[in-house]
Amino acid sequence: MSAIDILISEVGPRDGLQSIDPIMPLAAKCAWIDAEVAAGVREIEVGSFVPATLLPQLADTAAVVAHARRHPGLTVAVLVPNARGAKAAIAAGAHKLTLPLSASETHSLKNLRRTHAQVLEEARAIAAMVEACPPASRPHFEGSVSTAFGCTIEGIVTQAKVVELAEALMAAGCDEVGLSDTTGYANPAQVRQLVTAVRGAIGNDKLTGLHLHNTRGLGLANVIAGLEAGITTFDSSLGGLGGCPFAPGASGNIVTEDLVFMLEAMGLDTGIDLEKLLPVRDILRAALPSEPLYGFTPDAGLPLGFRAAA
Amino acid sequence: MSAIDILISEVGPRDGLQSIDPIMPLAAKCAWIDAEVAAGVREIEVGSFVPATLLPQLADTAAVVAHARRHPGLTVAVLVPNARGAKAAIAAGAHKLTLPLSASETHSLKNLRRTHAQVLEEARAIAAMVEACPPASRPHFEGSVSTAFGCTIEGIVTQAKVVELAEALMAAGCDEVGLSDTTGYANPAQVRQLVTAVRGAIGNDKLTGLHLHNTRGLGLANVIAGLEAGITTFDSSLGGLGGCPFAPGASGNIVTEDLVFMLEAMGLDTGIDLEKLLPVRDILRAALPSEPLYGFTPDAGLPLGFRAAA
Repeated sequence: MSAIDILISEVGPRDGLQSIDPIMPLAAKCAWIDAEVAAGVREIEVGSFVPATLLPQLADTAAVVAHARRHPGLTVAVLVPNARGAKAAIAAGAHKLTLPLSASETHSLKNLRRTHAQVLEEARAIAAMVEACPPASRPHFEGSVSTAFGCTIEGIVTQAKVVELAEALMAAGCDEVGLSDTTGYANPAQVRQLVTAVRGAIGNDKLTGLHLHNTRGLGLANVIAGLEAGITTFDSSLGGLGGCPFAPGASGNIVTEDLVFMLEAMGLDTGIDLEKLLPVRDILRAALPSEPLYGFTPDAGLPLGFRAAA
Repeated sequence: MSAIDILISEVGPRDGLQSIDPIMPLAAKCAWIDAEVAAGVREIEVGSFVPATLLPQLADTAAVVAHARRHPGLTVAVLVPNARGAKAAIAAGAHKLTLPLSASETHSLKNLRRTHAQVLEEARAIAAMVEACPPASRPHFEGSVSTAFGCTIEGIVTQAKVVELAEALMAAGCDEVGLSDTTGYANPAQVRQLVTAVRGAIGNDKLTGLHLHNTRGLGLANVIAGLEAGITTFDSSLGGLGGCPFAPGASGNIVTEDLVFMLEAMGLDTGIDLEKLLPVRDILRAALPSEPLYGFTPDAGLPLGFRAAA
């Protein structure tokens, strides 16, 4: 598989599906993943190892991981809320585990029902499990600072707090830290400043990914700021499905289709073929007929003369 | 009136209204303008001096100009397709005239029914009229290179062609040149490159404004690129009303509400009070009940703890 400039991590099967009421059948999830891989997507967050009573939409995550693992070259990522989830994720064979730690402790208590100290304790336990894996099957372990750009409950989140938590996650044994605009509060100036500050504290190679939302329409503008600050991995969701159910009014991942269009139009190689990606929406439409799909590029079509980066 | 960092030029009463079927009554147009001025908007493109048979939606432009002129400090801008329109605009007392020149000659023939040479001839005639005005009532004369980032008929538009036309507009007597993404084809890398190239050719102070669309969702990302290239004026439309009726599928101005939110969140002063701007949508909703309004910030609301730049 050739090198790419920017890695797009499709999070729809996790972040999208967890925030809607209908439960997508396993077969549709697998078809969705297969079609995205066929379009060139190289990393997919396929689910979350949380109790089925909390998120029945993701109860079949182990089966989805097993299916997704059949694609050579695909990084199969999952969200884990704690060490128990990480144990299940490792058993299922996930390639990448992401543990969220909310910068807002109030949000953390509501979302994960844990204090910062308790989440960091889970991080240490997960790091120990990861280290105990045989090298060939050792998953990548990412700590994700959520509500990093502001909180719907606490309001402003300081840069100092985010830097402190990023350092704490690294100290707890994470391989890498990501920043998440869970609430759609981020603006481009803030993205540039916060990414620069965190990279300065933990190292450029330890912060390479952003999870941005489009809640106030600034998603792609924030991507531009992230790119300029050195970020090379962006999360997005096909059709803009989903968001964070615990941050009211904060729905709306970046739309994968628009993100791919923007990056490829700029001459950045994502490895994704837009002509093949756009029809994948049909799978969502068929499996989730009641859910609205978002995105501008799918409606407008590709510009006349548009060619993806070679 | 205090200095601001970025000038937002509201183009809804022209670009928005010209692309929809319903005709907004004069009283509603005036109420819309009054409410935006009360929210702090300092430049509004209030109409276009085109034959009423072509655009009946803008037939009352002279009356709108007369009303808008009552606001001290407001720049009352209008679009003029030719010298005849400019004559009427000057008679009405417009402060700023914008003549579009489509970089795609095919688009120019369809849109203005004129070749490049013919439009440049009109530019010279308008410049002469503007020069003949008494200094106190001399309007600002802008030439706007439309389809500058690509054309729905010709496809790719070269940078060399846009630079050539910008130089030709300046040579014809324009005070300034703007660039317009009429078709929603622009991407941030292209915005940065083209703005830099045109500024290099005609001078930084001769290209200060961009008219961007959100057709493929990249509007605000392109604003970020424009800001970085030195642009200080951005066109947008309240509720995202409108677009270019002659470029199929190219509707969708940048949403003023989202643009103001982004800039103010970044700490850039637009002079606009978002809390006062958001309710102006009610005027559009009441006067144009069949038209959809766009924008993310109006739905999501302002972030907790958000304060506009002082």
